[in-house]
Amino acid sequence: METANIFGPIKALMDEVETRYHQELKPRTNSLADLISHIGKYKGKRLRPALVLLAGKCVGEIAPQHIDIAVVVEMVHTATLVHDDIIDEASMRRHVESINSKWGREISILFGDYLFSRGFTILSALDSQVATLLLSQTVNIMSEGELIQLQRRYDIGLSESDYFDIIERKTASLCAASCRLGATFAGANRKVSDMLSNYGLKIGIAFQIVDDCLDVMGTEEEIGKSLNSDIEKGKLTLPLIRLVNQLPRNKLESARELIFQHNGKETKSAIIELLTKHDAVEYAFNTAKNIVKQAQEEIAPLPDSKYKTALHELADYIVTRRK
Amino acid sequence: METANIFGPIKALMDEVETRYHQELKPRTNSLADLISHIGKYKGKRLRPALVLLAGKCVGEIAPQHIDIAVVVEMVHTATLVHDDIIDEASMRRHVESINSKWGREISILFGDYLFSRGFTILSALDSQVATLLLSQTVNIMSEGELIQLQRRYDIGLSESDYFDIIERKTASLCAASCRLGATFAGANRKVSDMLSNYGLKIGIAFQIVDDCLDVMGTEEEIGKSLNSDIEKGKLTLPLIRLVNQLPRNKLESARELIFQHNGKETKSAIIELLTKHDAVEYAFNTAKNIVKQAQEEIAPLPDSKYKTALHELADYIVTRRK
Repeated sequence: METANIFGPIKALMDEVETRYHQELKPRTNSLADLISHIGKYKGKRLRPALVLLAGKCVGEIAPQHIDIAVVVEMVHTATLVHDDIIDEASMRRHVESINSKWGREISILFGDYLFSRGFTILSALDSQVATLLLSQTVNIMSEGELIQLQRRYDIGLSESDYFDIIERKTASLCAASCRLGATFAGANRKVSDMLSNYGLKIGIAFQIVDDCLDVMGTEEEIGKSLNSDIEKGKLTLPLIRLVNQLPRNKLESARELIFQHNGKETKSAIIELLTKHDAVEYAFNTAKNIVKQAQEEIAPLPDSKYKTALHELADYIVTRRK
Repeated sequence: METANIFGPIKALMDEVETRYHQELKPRTNSLADLISHIGKYKGKRLRPALVLLAGKCVGEIAPQHIDIAVVVEMVHTATLVHDDIIDEASMRRHVESINSKWGREISILFGDYLFSRGFTILSALDSQVATLLLSQTVNIMSEGELIQLQRRYDIGLSESDYFDIIERKTASLCAASCRLGATFAGANRKVSDMLSNYGLKIGIAFQIVDDCLDVMGTEEEIGKSLNSDIEKGKLTLPLIRLVNQLPRNKLESARELIFQHNGKETKSAIIELLTKHDAVEYAFNTAKNIVKQAQEEIAPLPDSKYKTALHELADYIVTRRK
């Protein structure tokens, strides 16, 4: 099932978010027009706005603040993509050229800052500081996650638990915050907000594991962004960590060399062969599937509704998607 | 007169800000300890925190929020320095090695994001959104200013008015916001807040003009940061714009070549010779001095106090400083 179908019950709200998102990005100076129009072409899945709206609908009614928050979580996410693409030297993003590749890293740095600050301006119009607090903390945690990831590059000793710590911070924290804010602004109590936040955290972790599997196994045409950058950039992801853990000690150094010290097509097939031999990608996918099941269990106590069904289906989608 | 003397009347408050600044930066993860301890060595003038406190003291009493805001304006300023140093490829900042030079651009991008978001987390604990709104808008305007500056590099047609627009955004807007928040949180009415904000805007503009003059004329040992980067990076600043405006039309192309297409010591002396011949640096300094006078006139209607005197002296300092 595609996200467009899963998000069916909130289609009108998602359209509203889309319109507001583009309105809020409208440049006040000519100099930004090209950049912003290009960002407008980044047609993502809008996963985080959907989480805000679905979590809200699971619990109560959607308020105008939900739309603001949904716009901001997408804007913050886009800002992190713009900054990540400099770091990863990615040339493609969401099926179009990355800002980094088209305008260079200087413009990308500042444009990311522009997007972050625009988001916080929107939040500052809300009548409480709840969203400002949670989202500023989340951006802080996300940048910490990315920093730790950078510092542990080429570190064959990265454990599964280190990996989970990194992806929880860099990816899952914003999904958790999106769900928590959706629930809170619909009047959920602490217990229900925690449930939905845990759901968001878990599908965020699963999402990143699948992303990391696709980076190793997928093709760029299918996925619409630069791939294989993890290995090139020295990032050890779950399939590779599993492989390393399966190898006898005396094979470690040669695996390290294979993974990090060579590049090109031949190396890629050699790595894929090794991963396949040790069922390492399958292991990572299975881990993601288990986490998705836990996410679904988190929200099981909520009253049944088409919105809860959508969250359930979204969790399944995350581990079945191939792009 | 040095800033330490000028800030004498608020010394205890400045110490409090300094302590809080370091407390707030304390890393929660080991991985950030080195970065944060290095940033702790960036001993700046703490101009912006001083503006918050002096503007507040000119109008009324200092509240706990003033300390929070003073910490945040310094943190936001530091975040922009970290990002700017990537763009300018600067190796030195505030007499120590820049984060970019020591850790590379990837870490710098993320560490800047870390500092920005940390600042907004502090603001979200205040009991109003006033500071979040103004400072998020200010960061937005600052990034726009830097973006416009980047887009107009190597553009010999950059006018004085374009230059003023850029520096008002990238530098003066945060000085204006610091003064406005200081005044507002001490209970100033709109008219008085506007006065102090205008004062901040004007000294911010003058500060940047002087910075740009020092970049052309000063030495790195004196100033403690990488210099001459403006010309190397194709930034046309006021002395150069003045020079271009003074040259006959048929000399423009050769000036452009001299300024932007060559580099090295010989070119530097040739440019300085030309600037001197046309009194272009003197012109820029005089422009800054006039703007500083306007800044002092802005606050003339305020009741006399040692804090008002400090703001007056600070304005003078900005155009007499040589580092």
